Amino acid sequence: MNSFFAHKHVLITGGLGFLGSSLALSLIESGAQVTVIDNLNPLYGGNPFNIAGAEDRIEVIIEDIRHVDVLGPLIEKADIMFHLAAQVSYIDSLGMPYEDLDLNAKATLNVLECCRRLNPTLRILFSSSRMTYGRVEGTLVSENSATNPLSLYGIHKLTAEKYLLMYFKDFGIPSTILRLTNPYGPRQQIKHSKYSLVGWFVRQAMEGKVIQIFGDGGQLRDYVFVDDIVAAMLRCAEADSAIGEVVNVGSGASTRFRDMVSTVIRCVNGGSMECVPWPGNYERVETGDIAVDISKLTSLTAWQPRYTLEEGIQRTFEYYSKYALHYV
Amino acid sequence: MNSFFAHKHVLITGGLGFLGSSLALSLIESGAQVTVIDNLNPLYGGNPFNIAGAEDRIEVIIEDIRHVDVLGPLIEKADIMFHLAAQVSYIDSLGMPYEDLDLNAKATLNVLECCRRLNPTLRILFSSSRMTYGRVEGTLVSENSATNPLSLYGIHKLTAEKYLLMYFKDFGIPSTILRLTNPYGPRQQIKHSKYSLVGWFVRQAMEGKVIQIFGDGGQLRDYVFVDDIVAAMLRCAEADSAIGEVVNVGSGASTRFRDMVSTVIRCVNGGSMECVPWPGNYERVETGDIAVDISKLTSLTAWQPRYTLEEGIQRTFEYYSKYALHYV
Repeated sequence: MNSFFAHKHVLITGGLGFLGSSLALSLIESGAQVTVIDNLNPLYGGNPFNIAGAEDRIEVIIEDIRHVDVLGPLIEKADIMFHLAAQVSYIDSLGMPYEDLDLNAKATLNVLECCRRLNPTLRILFSSSRMTYGRVEGTLVSENSATNPLSLYGIHKLTAEKYLLMYFKDFGIPSTILRLTNPYGPRQQIKHSKYSLVGWFVRQAMEGKVIQIFGDGGQLRDYVFVDDIVAAMLRCAEADSAIGEVVNVGSGASTRFRDMVSTVIRCVNGGSMECVPWPGNYERVETGDIAVDISKLTSLTAWQPRYTLEEGIQRTFEYYSKYALHYV
Repeated sequence: MNSFFAHKHVLITGGLGFLGSSLALSLIESGAQVTVIDNLNPLYGGNPFNIAGAEDRIEVIIEDIRHVDVLGPLIEKADIMFHLAAQVSYIDSLGMPYEDLDLNAKATLNVLECCRRLNPTLRILFSSSRMTYGRVEGTLVSENSATNPLSLYGIHKLTAEKYLLMYFKDFGIPSTILRLTNPYGPRQQIKHSKYSLVGWFVRQAMEGKVIQIFGDGGQLRDYVFVDDIVAAMLRCAEADSAIGEVVNVGSGASTRFRDMVSTVIRCVNGGSMECVPWPGNYERVETGDIAVDISKLTSLTAWQPRYTLEEGIQRTFEYYSKYALHYV
């Protein structure tokens, strides 16, 4: 049991999703009293099965975080909040501009206005995204790199970041912003390919299908395993040095997209791959190569990424080998 | 008559305000067909008197730009749009977070969604603000400087900028973002001191009052005269080189706050000045010294600022000497 989290009230928005549920399961092992709120929007990854076996140790509230009358009292009693609820498809964000604005920006403003009134010392950990950077030319992306998002998703994540930084400066509400690269692992949605492709490809490989790659699949990505993300978020929650900071969270390793697919096919021992042209709506938001500098987080905390892509995909495959029926 | 604007349909949001009306008056002299939309929100600077004498040459629509059914047809028939409508008080933005979000960010998203559907070649000029930068330490602020806004006003202006840049990259909607420093001049509201202090101080000096300065008034500002801003916006509208760009618009000269006040007192030949402590809600959003690099705009276009602070304040005083009753 990690004494830092023991008996602490922890609130997780989007807590039945991929990251949220993984955090919840880890936190109850550390003795925290965990409440999750999730609207189970069928477009996204919320799934009650994600906390199967732990339902009696996690308080679950099925609600939309935009309902401030529900959110307020939860914020009031919490010590720590992981704010993960979001519209998560950067591809779809252009087709639902106002919903993306609502869920990714305005909902975070709601959170902060609640904190200001009800609980200004609430420790907030926010899941932002590498999508805030947009296209980056030829360099390692650090937290000081320019932010030129290519999607409404990226713009609204950036807006939410600015809210958090401002409310910290102005009111002392202590938050940390974690810019995640490409997360993958057990409990991620595998219903469709609109975001989080690793899990989707694991499913396709398990079904013996042909995995389509856009272009030559040469683009570099930083795939980061869920257990490493959970560890990073928990380390940040414990570290005063991370308050008011923006940190990249990635594996620190860059992998070509096609090599990720090959690794999936090899681990699963099924499926195959073919290259097809980029669809227009994807090409528009394609960021090009991404290589992420994670040294800020490793210097602020004792966190280090522990999983190679091969290990992570192997664990992901093992999970869906047992539980795929709960995710399709 | 400037042949570029002759017979062009020009739409100005916030067109009865300080900048909007000044633009409208200049554009009709260039032969443009000008439509202004303004909701005359009593908090802000919209004032029908601003276009007194030109009412028959400007189409005026009293409406809120959030009404897309009104805005859409106006956008559809326009060639050029000056998008100036805004919640303009950075001090007040914290007290009306959702209205600021609505007016300064979401309304710009509305504009762009209308353009995408109805008029994707509409040339847009957007009035952003130095407030997107936040506090800057000891250097000349260029368009590449970090953007760490200290107010919701600044955050939402930045969000609107990102929308414009993204819709240009993704859909080719041609816009230019003008980050204004501290605008002043004739037609600015002088009802209260919540924003645009130069005009307010001119009024106080004309009334023989004591002008209060927060702190020692040593902070540097870049005060830019309205005719210079209008010229900058028109030059940008003509310049293809300015499409997709963010440009600072200022005088290029830095003036201490107290020296601006002294200039007002000298030009008006009335009033006096005293120093008082900073109120908390102002200190929070105080940006510190600001000195702005305007070389990007002067190199992209033939624009140059033409008015010294003394000349600008003199003209402002002359205007309110005649028309103050229409503004109080």
